[in-house]
Amino acid sequence: MSRSVRLFALASAALSLPLAAARADEGMWTFDAFPAAKMRADYGWAPDQAWLDKVRSAAVRLTGGCSASFVSDSGLILTNHHCVASCIEDNSTANNNILKNGFTAADRSRELKCAGQQAEVVTSIKDVTAQVKSAIGTATGEAAVKARSAAVAALESGACPDTARTRCQVVSLYGGGQYKLYSYRKYSDVRLVWAPEAQAAQFGGDPDNFNFPRYSLDASFLRAYEDGKPVATPQHLEWSARAPVDGEATFVVGNPGSTQRLLTSEQLAFQRELALPITLATYSELRGRLISAMASDPAKEREAAETLGGIENSLKVYIGRVKALNDPAFTGRIAAAEAQLKAKSAGNPAIGNPWADVAKAMASYRDFYIADRFSLPQGDLFGYAMTLVRAAAERGKPNAERFPGYSDSVLPLVQKRLLDQRPIYPWLDQLMMEWSLSKSREYLGADDPQTKLLLGKESPEALSSRLVNGTRLADPAVRKGLWDGGIAAINASTDPMIVYARNLDANDRALQKRFDETVDAPLTAAQSKLADARFAAYGDTLYPDATFTLRISYGKVAGWMERGEMVPTRTTLGGTFDRATGASPFDLPPAFAANRSKIDAKTTYDFVTTNDIIGGNSGSPVIDRQSRVIGAAFDGNIHSLGGNYGYDGSLNRTVVVSTDAVQEALEKIYPAPHIVAELRRK
Amino acid sequence: MSRSVRLFALASAALSLPLAAARADEGMWTFDAFPAAKMRADYGWAPDQAWLDKVRSAAVRLTGGCSASFVSDSGLILTNHHCVASCIEDNSTANNNILKNGFTAADRSRELKCAGQQAEVVTSIKDVTAQVKSAIGTATGEAAVKARSAAVAALESGACPDTARTRCQVVSLYGGGQYKLYSYRKYSDVRLVWAPEAQAAQFGGDPDNFNFPRYSLDASFLRAYEDGKPVATPQHLEWSARAPVDGEATFVVGNPGSTQRLLTSEQLAFQRELALPITLATYSELRGRLISAMASDPAKEREAAETLGGIENSLKVYIGRVKALNDPAFTGRIAAAEAQLKAKSAGNPAIGNPWADVAKAMASYRDFYIADRFSLPQGDLFGYAMTLVRAAAERGKPNAERFPGYSDSVLPLVQKRLLDQRPIYPWLDQLMMEWSLSKSREYLGADDPQTKLLLGKESPEALSSRLVNGTRLADPAVRKGLWDGGIAAINASTDPMIVYARNLDANDRALQKRFDETVDAPLTAAQSKLADARFAAYGDTLYPDATFTLRISYGKVAGWMERGEMVPTRTTLGGTFDRATGASPFDLPPAFAANRSKIDAKTTYDFVTTNDIIGGNSGSPVIDRQSRVIGAAFDGNIHSLGGNYGYDGSLNRTVVVSTDAVQEALEKIYPAPHIVAELRRK
Repeated sequence: MSRSVRLFALASAALSLPLAAARADEGMWTFDAFPAAKMRADYGWAPDQAWLDKVRSAAVRLTGGCSASFVSDSGLILTNHHCVASCIEDNSTANNNILKNGFTAADRSRELKCAGQQAEVVTSIKDVTAQVKSAIGTATGEAAVKARSAAVAALESGACPDTARTRCQVVSLYGGGQYKLYSYRKYSDVRLVWAPEAQAAQFGGDPDNFNFPRYSLDASFLRAYEDGKPVATPQHLEWSARAPVDGEATFVVGNPGSTQRLLTSEQLAFQRELALPITLATYSELRGRLISAMASDPAKEREAAETLGGIENSLKVYIGRVKALNDPAFTGRIAAAEAQLKAKSAGNPAIGNPWADVAKAMASYRDFYIADRFSLPQGDLFGYAMTLVRAAAERGKPNAERFPGYSDSVLPLVQKRLLDQRPIYPWLDQLMMEWSLSKSREYLGADDPQTKLLLGKESPEALSSRLVNGTRLADPAVRKGLWDGGIAAINASTDPMIVYARNLDANDRALQKRFDETVDAPLTAAQSKLADARFAAYGDTLYPDATFTLRISYGKVAGWMERGEMVPTRTTLGGTFDRATGASPFDLPPAFAANRSKIDAKTTYDFVTTNDIIGGNSGSPVIDRQSRVIGAAFDGNIHSLGGNYGYDGSLNRTVVVSTDAVQEALEKIYPAPHIVAELRRK
Repeated sequence: MSRSVRLFALASAALSLPLAAARADEGMWTFDAFPAAKMRADYGWAPDQAWLDKVRSAAVRLTGGCSASFVSDSGLILTNHHCVASCIEDNSTANNNILKNGFTAADRSRELKCAGQQAEVVTSIKDVTAQVKSAIGTATGEAAVKARSAAVAALESGACPDTARTRCQVVSLYGGGQYKLYSYRKYSDVRLVWAPEAQAAQFGGDPDNFNFPRYSLDASFLRAYEDGKPVATPQHLEWSARAPVDGEATFVVGNPGSTQRLLTSEQLAFQRELALPITLATYSELRGRLISAMASDPAKEREAAETLGGIENSLKVYIGRVKALNDPAFTGRIAAAEAQLKAKSAGNPAIGNPWADVAKAMASYRDFYIADRFSLPQGDLFGYAMTLVRAAAERGKPNAERFPGYSDSVLPLVQKRLLDQRPIYPWLDQLMMEWSLSKSREYLGADDPQTKLLLGKESPEALSSRLVNGTRLADPAVRKGLWDGGIAAINASTDPMIVYARNLDANDRALQKRFDETVDAPLTAAQSKLADARFAAYGDTLYPDATFTLRISYGKVAGWMERGEMVPTRTTLGGTFDRATGASPFDLPPAFAANRSKIDAKTTYDFVTTNDIIGGNSGSPVIDRQSRVIGAAFDGNIHSLGGNYGYDGSLNRTVVVSTDAVQEALEKIYPAPHIVAELRRK
């Protein structure tokens, strides 16, 4: 379980296990445990190892939090527009607003660098459960967490000596029941090749998000580079620009970010009673602050569009979670499964009562959750400062003893994100900082010592203004100087943001220590026992909760029943013209309007499948039996919002933009014949 | 139960009954049922009828939603600063910002009119339960609601033929168990006499709201006028500028707005699962929209200060309610009381199963709650338009057949609020309208017929801009013309806001009808039975839920235990200087800084009592045994936020600004010797 103090990471967790054996098309399977027999029973066919190896080697993880795939032999990557929106925004200017207008690189020399972005491809998966568990041994509390971290750091750096081209990551599955070492080939130079107008990708905006029927061209192409040249990717997926067939089998291969399908009742209560109401209130306020600030100025509108989109997307997810956890039928199913597992485990002395241990850990967390959640402010500039302060201290320690997120295997990405040039908008940074500091004061109370540490005698408004206007960290050269200067440079710095971050460091470390001791360690131990209980009860028909590592889901093209009517499986490009009202966010993209006569109105635009996905899967290739890509997953339907806690095959759907529509766009709307030619090349 | 579609009225309800016999200082008692024996047992003393009659006749209800009292023989009224903030804001200009600077009328000719404000004093209370119940008879559904409305309208207009000077109101107590006819002497010309700097009243701002220790001069004086002259008020309370004594008995006499202490489990579940999460998210967003809009412009900052303050206050209340309903210990006590009442009522055929009837009504409401809640947009200008459209239609009908809120007894106040001159800020109206329309679309969905009715093909932004910029309703003369012109003028109007309101009317009426038929009528019938069950089980040791009618609460000056330490009962004026940080909202009011040497630092500033109050009680006089006023209640402590659902005498506290501090301010900080002289006159 992660401490939940970062934006968009509020609900992340590597807790828990599936409830019981996965049903119907449920499951986000690891590549080393694909349930071929189960799929064969349901579908009369299942992929073999060669098929699995092929698609695995073409699957790409984007470190920005998305999935993707290679679709040509020259490093061309298919993903969603919303996965590269921050790159598009960073490359937009008042004179050349490519977020608004779209972008086609006329040739490779015009492809645009995406700051902070990195593409990663899994090259091997190795079970290291025995090594990690034996390193933990009989340790408890903070000692157990430190022993685990040390073992993980050693395994990671041992397996990936070449940190320039590879990355290794030990992943905790089943909340501590298994540990797997994932090795990746990484590409840290990723460039934008093609993107439609934002209005085409975001048609329907927040109102249509997580809804279907849908009319969205949420697709984009990137290219992976190395040593200044496009990467050769012979293992790419074959591009198949065709309409899907109702009922045909589909695979989604990508990196679902996080699920919590096996929280115990106590953990769900913690979410419902404490964490989620705070998220609803604070993020909604941030949304409102951004909407008004952006309405006052077209430059701000452009500069914060992607930030607002991300927040609205997250909020919709959280609202869906609140709804799910306040639906007695939904929580009743979860409670019944918990009762069943307890009954099956009764009398097994090796299991004991891990539910009580979880309850105790959650009770501990309730005591300092508010302090933990509101320990640091938000904002890119503060984030740079905190990273510099932490990294300077941690780099001087042995790899095994470092603060989470600063081990050798992660440091290169930390450094890349810190030093890559990207625009900073002081007004936006100040807004984020002011908002988060005012929420800290609100939830902690004006008289709390942590509030006094955060604010001193200043107001959130004045403090954030002073820090944002006074710091020089927006300049990558200044950041590089401080990074290279190490602890001496950090200690000598008078940059106000660095001074501020230095001042908050000790308190945040103390909270981390308390979290490790009273929450993380006991939860990991209890969850390991829960994993044993589940394996004993249900065998290997289980899949681990999502961990933003590569998974495969199988399903089919299918609609669902909504208020007594079947929702059709697809929309067409022509339908866009009927749905457009002229008013934002339902205004027709200009290139659609201009090219209406050329567009084949019957082209399948978006479609739905039963695949089990969640946030992080955005951009995942949707693959047919012949391992050809037929779309990119970009959303779930409204019912999938409860997917964090459970999957209902009769209702949950993945929403996909079809390759047919993307190719029609490449040929007639945002012409890029050279990309079409590259996609067609075998 | 009211339909919950208006700002700040989201949780209003006249449902339910007290749980069981009131304990300790719990209770918001009606003046015709003061529990003298119970108080005498606890305090060794209780007021007699003469005492009660005296304070009742000095108690004032302010139609803006507050309480107050007469404190001189010339119509001088003591209330809270926050109760008149909208009057102060309306009378502020860029050149004379009296919200910021404070205000003292040099003489009576300089006192400032408060638009829309009306003062009301109870003159009699009569039981009309038999009349109303016999009018309902055996009717059910919408017919029962109509029969009740007709009986109420007839009783009200029969008892108050002089609508210029009196107002009659039938109040439903115990959710329909009793009906009482309240007669009021009303004063519709109310003027501002004195107000401190907003910074003195709001010191600590939202962070300190609902907290204690507190340093707030949340007091103000108004004066009631009639025929252009101050009203003679020989029945006023005697002013006693003194420090309270720990443990002394205190009475709060005022109009608590609404409590829901006897919701059944189903009703609480409806709040927790459905209504409150929507409130949290939508109001938090509105708060954020206002904060950013106000930060962009000092004029906007001034114009919306009171609106934002109101929203932040409401949000804090709602956050407290969410917390209470997500606290298993809190809800467990309520469930236990429900179980006890069910057990005591078992086998009584006259009671039957009203809990099941409530559950059925709430299930019906779930089916259309979203439509009902999001049927009309917010905004003053839209409110004017809807009132004009409705009133024109309703005034043509017999009194007994009108839409709720348009009977003869209410129309004069409706008309006054509509026609009084007050400033309209188009940007603020547009912000409210745009926000509410975008939330309607979000919760209903873009494809819902009601969304299409609300928006047509326009966006919330464009529609609200077109209507707010196009309407002439900001001009009171235009409103008067349409009011006087009646239905013909409304039907002929091409004012875009009137056209828009006309267009929404039928749908909203249909929702009201559905609410009456499937929710209101069955709930009223069930609650009447629940009232019978409670009276049978607990006798007359019960008090009705709050209904914004006059109540009296008794209690004492007392602190409470917080994290193992006793919170002192009071603060001093001198403490303000220690607490001030210089940064908003903890910046010292300029007049405090300027007069520091003159101020007696030991003067009691704010203090706490165990009185049981809730929103609506703001401004209530706090009265001692000798029926002298010693303060004005202005807040509750943080524990009182759950007071909507229950009272805990060990934790819930009323927060009061002392007369001692007010007089010190009148003498040394915001000098007004003529007011001091008036207060001292017997």
